[in-house]
Amino acid sequence: MNVVDLITKKRDGGEHSAGELRFLMEGIVAGTIPDYQVAAWAMAVYFRGMTPEETTALTLAMADSGETLDLRALAPSEKLIVDKHSSGGVGDKTTLTVGPIVAACGLPVGKMSGRGLSFSGGTIDKLEGLPGWSADLSTAQFRRQLKDVGLVVAAQTASLAPADQMLYALRDVTGTVPSLPLIAGSIMSKKLAAGADAIVLDVKCGRGAFMELLPQARELAELMVSIGRGAGRRVTALVTAMEQPLGRAIGNILEVREAIDTLQGGGPADFQELTQEVATEMLLLGDPELHRKQEAAGEEVARKSARSRVQASIDSGAAFDKFVQFVAAQGGDAAAVVSPDRLDAAPAVLKLESKRSGVVSRLDARAVGLAVAALGGGRQRKGDAIDHRVGVVLASKAGQQVQAGDQLCTIHAADADAARLAADRILDAYSFHDLPRLTAVELEGEVGAEKGTGLGSHARSIILDRITS
Amino acid sequence: MNVVDLITKKRDGGEHSAGELRFLMEGIVAGTIPDYQVAAWAMAVYFRGMTPEETTALTLAMADSGETLDLRALAPSEKLIVDKHSSGGVGDKTTLTVGPIVAACGLPVGKMSGRGLSFSGGTIDKLEGLPGWSADLSTAQFRRQLKDVGLVVAAQTASLAPADQMLYALRDVTGTVPSLPLIAGSIMSKKLAAGADAIVLDVKCGRGAFMELLPQARELAELMVSIGRGAGRRVTALVTAMEQPLGRAIGNILEVREAIDTLQGGGPADFQELTQEVATEMLLLGDPELHRKQEAAGEEVARKSARSRVQASIDSGAAFDKFVQFVAAQGGDAAAVVSPDRLDAAPAVLKLESKRSGVVSRLDARAVGLAVAALGGGRQRKGDAIDHRVGVVLASKAGQQVQAGDQLCTIHAADADAARLAADRILDAYSFHDLPRLTAVELEGEVGAEKGTGLGSHARSIILDRITS
Repeated sequence: MNVVDLITKKRDGGEHSAGELRFLMEGIVAGTIPDYQVAAWAMAVYFRGMTPEETTALTLAMADSGETLDLRALAPSEKLIVDKHSSGGVGDKTTLTVGPIVAACGLPVGKMSGRGLSFSGGTIDKLEGLPGWSADLSTAQFRRQLKDVGLVVAAQTASLAPADQMLYALRDVTGTVPSLPLIAGSIMSKKLAAGADAIVLDVKCGRGAFMELLPQARELAELMVSIGRGAGRRVTALVTAMEQPLGRAIGNILEVREAIDTLQGGGPADFQELTQEVATEMLLLGDPELHRKQEAAGEEVARKSARSRVQASIDSGAAFDKFVQFVAAQGGDAAAVVSPDRLDAAPAVLKLESKRSGVVSRLDARAVGLAVAALGGGRQRKGDAIDHRVGVVLASKAGQQVQAGDQLCTIHAADADAARLAADRILDAYSFHDLPRLTAVELEGEVGAEKGTGLGSHARSIILDRITS
Repeated sequence: MNVVDLITKKRDGGEHSAGELRFLMEGIVAGTIPDYQVAAWAMAVYFRGMTPEETTALTLAMADSGETLDLRALAPSEKLIVDKHSSGGVGDKTTLTVGPIVAACGLPVGKMSGRGLSFSGGTIDKLEGLPGWSADLSTAQFRRQLKDVGLVVAAQTASLAPADQMLYALRDVTGTVPSLPLIAGSIMSKKLAAGADAIVLDVKCGRGAFMELLPQARELAELMVSIGRGAGRRVTALVTAMEQPLGRAIGNILEVREAIDTLQGGGPADFQELTQEVATEMLLLGDPELHRKQEAAGEEVARKSARSRVQASIDSGAAFDKFVQFVAAQGGDAAAVVSPDRLDAAPAVLKLESKRSGVVSRLDARAVGLAVAALGGGRQRKGDAIDHRVGVVLASKAGQQVQAGDQLCTIHAADADAARLAADRILDAYSFHDLPRLTAVELEGEVGAEKGTGLGSHARSIILDRITS
């Protein structure tokens, strides 16, 4: 096979065979195909796209390009290993809550996670805010903890889907990141290589997500579900709102604290809702008892049952206990989880007040995420060190009425100067509306309608769509 | 400036500033922009194109990326240095005739030429068929010969428009060659850097050219004329037919012999016509006396005068004498030019006969070019050695009636096996028509109409269009 012929084929709108895609991905990993040919091919894919069949073949080729985990033997009888993936957002600490909940409900959760980049946070960064906690596990350690604890979160290793990792690094510097088949293939190849039987995808949509528009996000969700189907895995994708940050806390340790609150039955309503929805979908996919219930009594009955098990795991403290056990198993300070005031705190805390009265019509998640990254809580580039203590806790979110002088948020910073800079940026992230005579419901329609994304900043439910295989 | 931002800008259909294009071209030459970013950018240009202003700015940036020649001081008073460029074809030995003719008419011709690749031949390869002749001249030698002889042909050096050379090498391996602005920029940047005041472009069109369709060829011609205008040079572009090979000889030494015939008043009619047209355009662009005549008496009078000077230079033997002088000045064996039978000949000569009677409806120039390359007369890759002796001399071309047993062509090969292989390929390049009752003119319309290119294989004139600044 000749690489120039393959580039030309895609450039001219042709469809690659599975063999051609395997040849390309193997060549990337072996180093026999130079970067410049891969870059030109990726740009041709950006313009020409891929059929669902091509995207599935690409994903399988990337998944098979390195080590693949087979976790099946580690699941209790008949139960499936369920993974969960979020496409990335601001304030998204959902893995920290759904992992313990689902594990407490008896389904093992073994997850490979990433680090944050740009405005978006990463699960590993958040957990590393817990003293001693480490994501560097050998495959043997990963398997043992999955069997013993039922919950493990590890950093993705270089041996997992290396073709994806190399292709992604190249896309990042060649303007070829925003290609739907390449995004879907990148996400799904890692999930397939990591050995899950079933996967719940949380596709974020809005200003704080990589997909800003609902049709795009829905297309990505459908594509990933179709890849999962093609690869013989059960997949459910939720499309969820990411116009404004999820929950109230943004910043690594601050988010861990919010996750702990939520596991103990507290936490903000939107984050509670998402936690429950994702955990419910994971149980529905992975628990054979619920499959039987679904067949016998229908989906609504099964879903209700799953939901009540999720709630019970929180109410009983089983989910929180599982989180403590998980943190300790990976070397973390369990005492700090039980008494979060022992966690590191930022030295400078600044309360930001509203200068005007009105209704918060919008709170730009991306701008908040970038402000937290600028505080040191995120990265400009891979490998940058981060400050786990810093971040923002929101007091006022979109849809809320505020008076001048009311608190908008609290900024946690390394010093007072950094806090003031962040305050300016976050104030810019807020938009206000003068609509004193509208009711809350009218307002919601008003705000939703005026935005290009098709989402209101404060839609009634955070779940926008649900697609399942 | 950030390269990813520039790639993204072009990817999204934006227009580059002259400064951005200069930054890119300087970065390519300095090696500060990695190949993979250039490759992704080139693919984005392939899809998005460039405005004429961008293309001119790109061309100037490439022309200025290395050494530039200033030949103005070498031209006799008021006369312009005129260059000539062909976009490449099969059997195109026009530089070998127009160079001596124009020089014999008193206009200095200093040309940088290339080598052949794939189905297309190159002037340097042809001239190297003359024993001793060399294209490796220093800038000082080039200038001295231009002044003393009035005609010089040198190989393009690495110091001339290096950004173009590096970009072209990358396009060649990334499927980004067929981009009109990149093709036009590549051709024109070398011409601008080589210091000509005026340029006649011969844009080939048809099966044996890189532009197969007339609208494409016309667009390329117009674009190059517009670049020339933007760079302050006088440019005339001819769009000429390349459905079937030009003349009868294809293959390096065989073509030199045909050029010698033509300089002595013989040669095939189509090649005579093209030689006269290109030489006439060069004189019209470069001779101030003809400019004055054009202003005083109109273009037709000036053109007629130029044409008769071209004819006179052949009839008087001045053009042929100039060729002998030029060959000798570059170390070539002048005696072999005067007695071409002293030139190397291929050991195996095979006459190919027609198996059927009919009219040659088509003779595929590309297939003939590839057959000659396979004989060893051309290259698969840059740097391949070639056999200057081999090639084909056509006896029957499109539009001609043949009887079974009539000679189609003579194949000149290194051995009998190679000749037989070439015979099969060349027989496939011929198509025949059963149209005994049509007249020649009707036939021409018939053949022209059934072809996608819009050209008949044997259009009445080889000149399809003429565009001038």
